[in-house]
Amino acid sequence: MSDSALFIHEGVPQPPVVNPQASFFYKKNQTPEHATQTYINGIRSGNVSLLSQAITLLESTRSDHQQIAHSVLEACLPFSGNSMRIGITGVPGAGKSTFIESFGSCLTQRGHKLAVLAIDPSSERSKGSILGDKTRMERLAGDPKAFIRPTPNAGSLGGVARKTRESVILCEAAGYNVIFIETVGVGQSEVAVHSMTDFFLLLMISGAGDELQGIKRGIMEMADLIVINKADGENVPKASLAQALYQNALHLFPPTGSGWTPAVLTASAMEHTGLDTILQKINDYFTLIRANGYMEQKRRQQARYWMNETINETLRNRFFGNPQMETLLPVYEQKVLEGSLDSFAAAAALIQQFDAIHGSTL
Amino acid sequence: MSDSALFIHEGVPQPPVVNPQASFFYKKNQTPEHATQTYINGIRSGNVSLLSQAITLLESTRSDHQQIAHSVLEACLPFSGNSMRIGITGVPGAGKSTFIESFGSCLTQRGHKLAVLAIDPSSERSKGSILGDKTRMERLAGDPKAFIRPTPNAGSLGGVARKTRESVILCEAAGYNVIFIETVGVGQSEVAVHSMTDFFLLLMISGAGDELQGIKRGIMEMADLIVINKADGENVPKASLAQALYQNALHLFPPTGSGWTPAVLTASAMEHTGLDTILQKINDYFTLIRANGYMEQKRRQQARYWMNETINETLRNRFFGNPQMETLLPVYEQKVLEGSLDSFAAAAALIQQFDAIHGSTL
Repeated sequence: MSDSALFIHEGVPQPPVVNPQASFFYKKNQTPEHATQTYINGIRSGNVSLLSQAITLLESTRSDHQQIAHSVLEACLPFSGNSMRIGITGVPGAGKSTFIESFGSCLTQRGHKLAVLAIDPSSERSKGSILGDKTRMERLAGDPKAFIRPTPNAGSLGGVARKTRESVILCEAAGYNVIFIETVGVGQSEVAVHSMTDFFLLLMISGAGDELQGIKRGIMEMADLIVINKADGENVPKASLAQALYQNALHLFPPTGSGWTPAVLTASAMEHTGLDTILQKINDYFTLIRANGYMEQKRRQQARYWMNETINETLRNRFFGNPQMETLLPVYEQKVLEGSLDSFAAAAALIQQFDAIHGSTL
Repeated sequence: MSDSALFIHEGVPQPPVVNPQASFFYKKNQTPEHATQTYINGIRSGNVSLLSQAITLLESTRSDHQQIAHSVLEACLPFSGNSMRIGITGVPGAGKSTFIESFGSCLTQRGHKLAVLAIDPSSERSKGSILGDKTRMERLAGDPKAFIRPTPNAGSLGGVARKTRESVILCEAAGYNVIFIETVGVGQSEVAVHSMTDFFLLLMISGAGDELQGIKRGIMEMADLIVINKADGENVPKASLAQALYQNALHLFPPTGSGWTPAVLTASAMEHTGLDTILQKINDYFTLIRANGYMEQKRRQQARYWMNETINETLRNRFFGNPQMETLLPVYEQKVLEGSLDSFAAAAALIQQFDAIHGSTL
């Protein structure tokens, strides 16, 4: 449904894209075993260059790269999990990059080590826009306590989500104790981000409501914190009014599973105001969910979810990505849309065709 | 995630349950072809008994029953689609049965023919509680212009959804021009109901908010109309206040894809007040979405969604319902939860095992 974020499996998955920028440290006269150990040691000692290369290996589709990356990942697993994983999404025009830069600097100034990752399943975007990401967060990019990872290459949402989730593990093993995962573009990535973070921050601006066109219904109810950004100059009264309105609205929502009452705050990323209060709220949240067991419970659910979801995506890809099915699917879809065949009969017929192609009777 | 309706594919599907009450008209000295024609003619002439039997055939798992049912369904397809499909859900204690009875009678008095269906994927409930459904809606059950179909037997959500969606087609072919599909229990059925209806009504009551425990986050943003029920006696002022609060809150939500502004009304199903206004709102909605093309567009999306979703569910069932996988899954899940294996590596290993079992290299 175009008006609901709940329909996450409608489309046909996109094929993965090979990273054209893969060039690796381990080629330099090292065995794969030696390279693996180099990456592990480097990541554990906080070497940004080796962390970055290991993530590039995760993103590569070459099997030797994947093999090294997964050995590194496995070795890093015991050292992961110790960060606050924060999802950040925003309505168009809310100033997300400026906010991440400004709030991120606020965190590093207080001694935190921050990694900024992104999920961008849109295939329209430029491939691995390192320059773009670093330019839009210039100050943070030069901050030794911050690690900004460019948006990974386009691919299926599941594939991109996997890379991001695995990158989180490497970043945590490298000592980053706050991870931002931002959504890029307007799409289905909010659900993926929500399903791999502990805390979900929605960035908004006060205004006539036009900016709400940019978010899907259902996203607001996922937020643990709404920040009304650009609360500066003559915007301040409008932002305070919006804060009060949203605060009242959130009270009417069903309670969260965490026992947390979602909050609404105002801030100006440009003028660096309101950021301390946001940090305080986030700390309050983590204190709560660490104490009541929700954090542990949610992460276990997420681990289970991604295992099952990865299996489901693999099964879907085999079916919907099969060249013969790609020819048959629009034929049956047309019959369904014309009303000459119902959806379930069409599905049954397609499954039968799929099995016939593979001689399978699974 | 326990606090989000967005995670709809987490669990392992439940096995279908055979309907123990299947006993059929066509056994009485008829050939299947003759029976099929009898059902088609009966449904088209509005024969409630034959409509009811045809739905029972749809629900049966016997292949001869399924064959007749699908022939009937195919013949009915060209005569379907002419109803207002209305999803109804409510917080616990909102008085859903009384509301459906009261509002349903209001519709039949105005000459509408109403069918009431339900989606109840919970396996805990009694099997096909005809008595329960008819008792709780006594007045409507005796109304010649109303058809109440008991909740189908438990099964997977997809299976139950299929039966309900196919029942809609038969009811429409039988001349019912308003279809209610209600959710039963608290669960994931709201998403299924939303994905097979044109209009989604959320029934609430004014109160301290405890009743909100009963609905999942994300459901409120799906509503086209919120009705605050039990606005009678000393509750009237509280209901009006709740109406104003929710009305303000809905203005802050992202816009719907339909161009419709969700409304909030008060009513007393017990005292039959507020029902005309609800009917007027629903008529306004359908006038809008018929005129702007959204109804047609949404139904096409739904048809496509159910085709793809049925394929996905079949693929999932084959994997997660495979006895050998059922043994292996908890082993790998445990590794993931312990943190000794990451979710994606576990998924890859399980897929490899699945392929090995079937000698498949799909």
